[in-house]
This record gives sequence, C-alpha cells and structure tokens, in this order.
Amino acid sequence: MVGEIISVGTELLLGNIVNTNAAYLAEQCAALGVSCYYQTCVGDNEERLTETLKTAFKRSDVVILTGGLGPTQDDLTKEVVAKLMQLKLVEDSKAKEMLISYFEKRGIEITDNNWKQALVPEQSIVMYNDNGTAPGIIAEKGKKTAILLPGPPGEMKPMFEKYVVDYFKQRNPFVISSVTVKLCGIGESKVESEIKDLIDKQDNPTIATYAKTGEVHLRVTAKAENEKEALKLIRPVVKKLKTRFGEKVFTTEESVTLEQAFVDLLLANNLTVCTVESCTGGLVSARLINVPGVSEVYKFGHVTYSNKAKRKIVGVKKSTLEKYTAVSEQVALQMVKGAGVFSKADVAISVTGIAGPEGGTEDIPVGTVFIACDVKGNTRVEKFQFKGNRTKIRENAVAAALTLSRKCVLEYITQVSFGNKKDK
Amino acid sequence: MVGEIISVGTELLLGNIVNTNAAYLAEQCAALGVSCYYQTCVGDNEERLTETLKTAFKRSDVVILTGGLGPTQDDLTKEVVAKLMQLKLVEDSKAKEMLISYFEKRGIEITDNNWKQALVPEQSIVMYNDNGTAPGIIAEKGKKTAILLPGPPGEMKPMFEKYVVDYFKQRNPFVISSVTVKLCGIGESKVESEIKDLIDKQDNPTIATYAKTGEVHLRVTAKAENEKEALKLIRPVVKKLKTRFGEKVFTTEESVTLEQAFVDLLLANNLTVCTVESCTGGLVSARLINVPGVSEVYKFGHVTYSNKAKRKIVGVKKSTLEKYTAVSEQVALQMVKGAGVFSKADVAISVTGIAGPEGGTEDIPVGTVFIACDVKGNTRVEKFQFKGNRTKIRENAVAAALTLSRKCVLEYITQVSFGNKKDK
Repeated sequence: MVGEIISVGTELLLGNIVNTNAAYLAEQCAALGVSCYYQTCVGDNEERLTETLKTAFKRSDVVILTGGLGPTQDDLTKEVVAKLMQLKLVEDSKAKEMLISYFEKRGIEITDNNWKQALVPEQSIVMYNDNGTAPGIIAEKGKKTAILLPGPPGEMKPMFEKYVVDYFKQRNPFVISSVTVKLCGIGESKVESEIKDLIDKQDNPTIATYAKTGEVHLRVTAKAENEKEALKLIRPVVKKLKTRFGEKVFTTEESVTLEQAFVDLLLANNLTVCTVESCTGGLVSARLINVPGVSEVYKFGHVTYSNKAKRKIVGVKKSTLEKYTAVSEQVALQMVKGAGVFSKADVAISVTGIAGPEGGTEDIPVGTVFIACDVKGNTRVEKFQFKGNRTKIRENAVAAALTLSRKCVLEYITQVSFGNKKDK
Repeated sequence: MVGEIISVGTELLLGNIVNTNAAYLAEQCAALGVSCYYQTCVGDNEERLTETLKTAFKRSDVVILTGGLGPTQDDLTKEVVAKLMQLKLVEDSKAKEMLISYFEKRGIEITDNNWKQALVPEQSIVMYNDNGTAPGIIAEKGKKTAILLPGPPGEMKPMFEKYVVDYFKQRNPFVISSVTVKLCGIGESKVESEIKDLIDKQDNPTIATYAKTGEVHLRVTAKAENEKEALKLIRPVVKKLKTRFGEKVFTTEESVTLEQAFVDLLLANNLTVCTVESCTGGLVSARLINVPGVSEVYKFGHVTYSNKAKRKIVGVKKSTLEKYTAVSEQVALQMVKGAGVFSKADVAISVTGIAGPEGGTEDIPVGTVFIACDVKGNTRVEKFQFKGNRTKIRENAVAAALTLSRKCVLEYITQVSFGNKKDK
C-alpha cells in the first residue's frame, strides 16, 4: 500500500512549529507496511490544499492529513476533502453529543462555529476524539482513502493508535512488527561493525541502527502474516544481539529508558543511590527522578557547582582542589566518597567537568568530564572527552554517568555473588 | 518573492529524524520576506525528485533544497537540479582545495567518490562549507533560482546565515526585521486580550504571539527599505508592550533565556542563590547552570525527593511532614528556610509537588506544586496546579519557580531602594 502525508497549517509554513507529526506518522506507516514517498506541508488555503490533494491521490492509495479540523473559518481540511471526493457532509450524532458534553464539563457555552465539528463525510469511519473537540475521519471512495487527523500531537497520536493502526492492519495482508534492543556504553560505528555480518545478510527481519545521546538502539523488524509469526522471526535475532552485546543491552522494551533500567536494577537489588553533580547541575538526579517510584531508591542529590560548595557539602579538600583543580579524577573521587558517607546510600555518583564555552585550558579542554561511582566502597572513576556545545556536553555527561553507574552496579552484583568483593 | 522548501532524504520519509531544517528555513524565509506556500519531503530518488522540482519551479521563483549533497551514489540532488536547469557540472577549484585540506587535517585518505563534491553547476554561486565537505550552491537560470544546502543542520544553518541571507537581501527590495518581547508569569490568552487593540489595527509592524512553557513571546515584525527604517517602526510598539506588561517582560533579546535574565538580575544586584527541589529533581538548578558564568551567583543545590532527605538536608520537621504532608505550603517554607540558612545564599528557592502519574489524592491531586522563594528573609510561597504528564508538570514547575523567584527579587530590590524591607 502506498501512502502519503499532508500536514495542513500556516504555522508550519511560517516555521513557528516543527513538524513532529510528519515524523511520527512516517515512522508508524513504515512499521505498518505503508510505503510513503512524499510528505507535503501546505497552508489553510482551499486552492492550494485542493491541488496538493489531487496530486497526492494521483500517486498514492492513502492520504493522511493532519490539521485544519478545528471550529474556525480557517479550518477547511474536511470541507476540501469531502468536495474533492464528492462526499456529502452529514451530522454525526455521537460526535455532536461528545461536543456538547465536552463544553458542558468545562462550563463553557458552545459558540455557533463549533457545530461544524460534528459534520463528517457520509459513510466515513468517525474517529472520536478523547483529547479535544474535533473528531478524525477515515473516508473511502473507490480505491482511494483519506485519513483526517487533528493537528495537535496530543490529540493526533492517541487517535492514530486507537483507530488508524487497526485500520491499516485490516487492510494490509501482512503485519510489520518490531522489537528494539537498546544499548549503552558503546558507539554507533562499533555496534555496526560488530553486526556487519547480520546486516549484510538481512532480509526478514531487518536490523536498523539509531544513535541517541549515549545510546544506540537496534530495531529488529519483521513482516509476517500475523503478530505471532513476526515475533517468531524476530526472537532469534534479538537473542543473537543480546549474546553479542551482553550487559551493554539495557532493555528490549520500547518504553523503558536508561534511567528506568538503572532504577529497576537498584530496586531489584535493594540498593539506594545518591548523586553529587557539578557541570551537569542536577540533570543526573532529574533523569533519575523521571522514573515514577524512584523514591524507593533515591536518597538525595547535591549540586556543588562552585569549589566552595564541593568543600562544604561533600568535604572535598581545599588542597586537592588547589593541586588538581576541580575538574580532576581526585576531586571526582572525593565528591563521590563525601556524598556516599553523608547520605549512607549504597551507590554514589559524582560528575565534575567543564561544559564551556569558557574556562577550557590546554590540559583540561572544554568537554573534559570526570565521573566517579561508588558501590558500597568499590569505587571507579573514568575520564571522558565530549564534543559539542554546553548542552550537548552536559547531556552526554548525564548518559555517561548513568551508563558507568549501571556498569559498576552490575559488576558489584556479579562479584558479590562470587563472594570476593568487600561489602561494608 | 515566492519560495518553497524541498527536503531530500529517505531518513525523513521513514520518520527516523524530525525535519527541523524545514521549520528553520521557513522561519528565515518569512523574516526575509520570501513567501513560502509549500514544503515537500522526498527521498533520494531521481524520478520523484525531478517531478517534485518541476512542480516547485512551476509555482515558485526560488526553490530551497536541503540534503543529498554528500559523496555517495545515493546523493543526487545536485545532479538532478543541474540536469533539470540544463547547467553543466564543472569542477570548482576552491571547493576541491577545501576538500583536500579537510581530509588532510584529519589524516584520512580521500576515496574516489568524494571528488564529486567539488563539482558545481556552471556559473553558480558556490557556498563553501566551513563545517563539512559538501559545498552549497545557488544556481540561477532565467527567472528561477535553486538553492542547494547540505542536510545536517550544523552545516546548513551557518551556510544559510553566511550566504543565503545576503543573497535574499540583495534580491528583495525591502527587509523584514523583528524584535521579540519575552514575558513570564502571564498566560497566552491574557496576553492576547490585553493587546487586542494593537493586534486588531496591526499592519506594519505586525505582532505575533507564541506560547512556550511558562512564557509568552511576542514577535514584532516590520517591513521596510532597510534595517534602520524597520527598527524605527518596531521600537514604539516594543515600548508600548513594555509599558503594558511591565516587569513581566524579562527580555527583548532573541538569545536571552528566562534563566539568563534571572542570573543577570542576581549578578547586577550582587545576590547569590541556592535551590532545594523535590518533584523537579534538579531541573531548576540544571536550568540555572545552563547559564555560562553562573558560578558567580550559584551557591549550591539540593535534591530532597524523599521525606527523610527533606528532614536531613534542609531540616524540615517530622511533625510538619506528618501534619501537612510533603506537598504543602508549610514544607515548601521549611525547605526554603533550611536551604537559605545552610547555604547563606541571599536567595533560596524550594519546590515540592506531585508530578504523578501515581500518588495523587482528592485534596492534593497530581499536578499540585508549592514553590517558595526567600530573598534575605522576605519569604513568599505560592500554590500551582499544573496539567499534563510527569514531564510537562515538572517543566511547568521549573518555569514557575524561575518566574516567582525573579518576581521576589524584583520586589526586594524595589522595596530596599525605598528603605522599607528587612535586610539581614
């Protein structure tokens, strides 16, 4: 099936917002086996939208449109589609009811222009909107289909997942399924070279690599008659990847983040954690606190940006700061030790570095970061050299801190189970 | 002048990356007076790219293309444009030299496919690439222009700013300039209703509102013969907006963020700051530490997510936690007091709230956040009720904390200058 995406909205043409809808829809379509060769953005303009639609229907079976479904005069996507497909607009009683209840709940009076949101092209599938007022529509005529979705991502995505995914699955004689294997502590090119043999001979399933900050994701995708058959094809490849990359695989669940995997690891082993941060300024703790339920393991965190704070809060020695400077292995170690002792957490993480743009020297250039981790007295410190601007360097440092800490905890667990590590 | 944007790249069609280039170019074009009515994404495919280009040239004077300028066989944007415009590809000696030097510097041997990057359509303007290997091109034929830019934003944007801005300014008989007035502590609809009169009668300059998390930006844009004339039109409107919104205007500089404005305010008044955070988990301190040079004013920060941490680190009383719960005015006040006393900072900020998704009650639903600020003993606490998911609630809380703290500092400064506030 060939599809294409049309994003309607003057705000896109003016660059006021970035078109994340198109990327989302493109990714979903690829996963559902719908090939999309074109994406177009056009304003809320009848003539231009009509032309764009005509061109799209000439070359595609399914046209997915977002935006222009609202109550104002500007919103004309539905009207243009109905006219071109020669479908009458009729009132949908459930859509009307939902509209009334939406406004009643909020205690707002419905203005006249809102009623047009209850109109839908005759014989179409109506996608009721749980997160806004404009319903979506799947309209078919002959061999062509138009799928109309609201513009706000918070309304569009749940609607796509609730209605459109099933619609495509029904129309497509096969399903496309995928599992993502997420790695940390290894670069994209290293990953690619280690699975070159698998990529070279790939057919079904396929393997695609995606580089994220501090992570590499491998998406294994298979095409089959049904979900079960697809997973049967995927499973041995995922197993192979897990064997090759070992502990570097932190999850194979789409929804699990690195911080979630780390917090789960701590929870499973009854370990608590604390953080002390300089250049990352609280971002490591903020990422841990992204995880709901982290209060079970998170003791507390400190942001010691200045030298004085490093001394006062976590007892870094003045002489160490003078001799080695704040961005040094020695200071990272004293930070992690001080934090651990004070908080009595089982795991302590420290980060000190120089995020720039000012303050770099020949010996310690911008991007130098020391990260230390202590797990019940077993301490490790590593030096990193990151590239990019202040934000990029800090984001990389956060990912590296989580990766290193996870590694230290895993090592500790392994060693303890063999009885040859100190346990305070 | 009518322009349009074509983004070339299969990775866009698969949704692997979000098309931020199109938004950037659209915004730049709007500012330069180039009207863009269409944006198209197409893959690295000769036939489809040729069709897309033909359609674009029929309806636009200038077509801006990004992507497909690299060394591989897939990259064919330049070849397709040259063929369609009937321009021969010729070697550009400076581009060749730069290519050689780029590889020499990195100690890499040039592979044969790289040489094609030194080829450019005859008589075109070559835009040399300071951040990569592929040069950009401005090719003219008759009344039509094609502007070819590399795909990576880090190469595309500097090239656009160095070459294309001037090219458009020369071709356009007028300039478009704008100034952004940034507000905090006021919602978008309130802003719009307060300037309805200005918006209704707007012509040149125009005023556009943009809602950001916790901020509203007003962009005042004028069209004139030159920059100076444009600013002459803009200035009185900016002045009017400043008068209407008073202290809510935190900057009129495009590059200044809310955290930067707050840090500048602290610097100018010799005030230091500390933070103590619960639900925001370090995000307030991390935003302050976004600002280079913040070490002058930032004392230190604590993340006290658990009740125990609140007691141990900033001395919140057990009885207060028991009586009022952690998400209360009383705890926010004790947190801010404890942080201030311990750090001896002039300004202390505390945040405690419930970011969800679990843990809400009828009395304290998810999204309830208390923020307190103390400026040298003058304390204020406010309750907020935010909507959205965990991330959204936390981001809103961070913006509210910065906004409230800025307000408290401004009040303190005003009162001190009238001599009627306590100063410890």
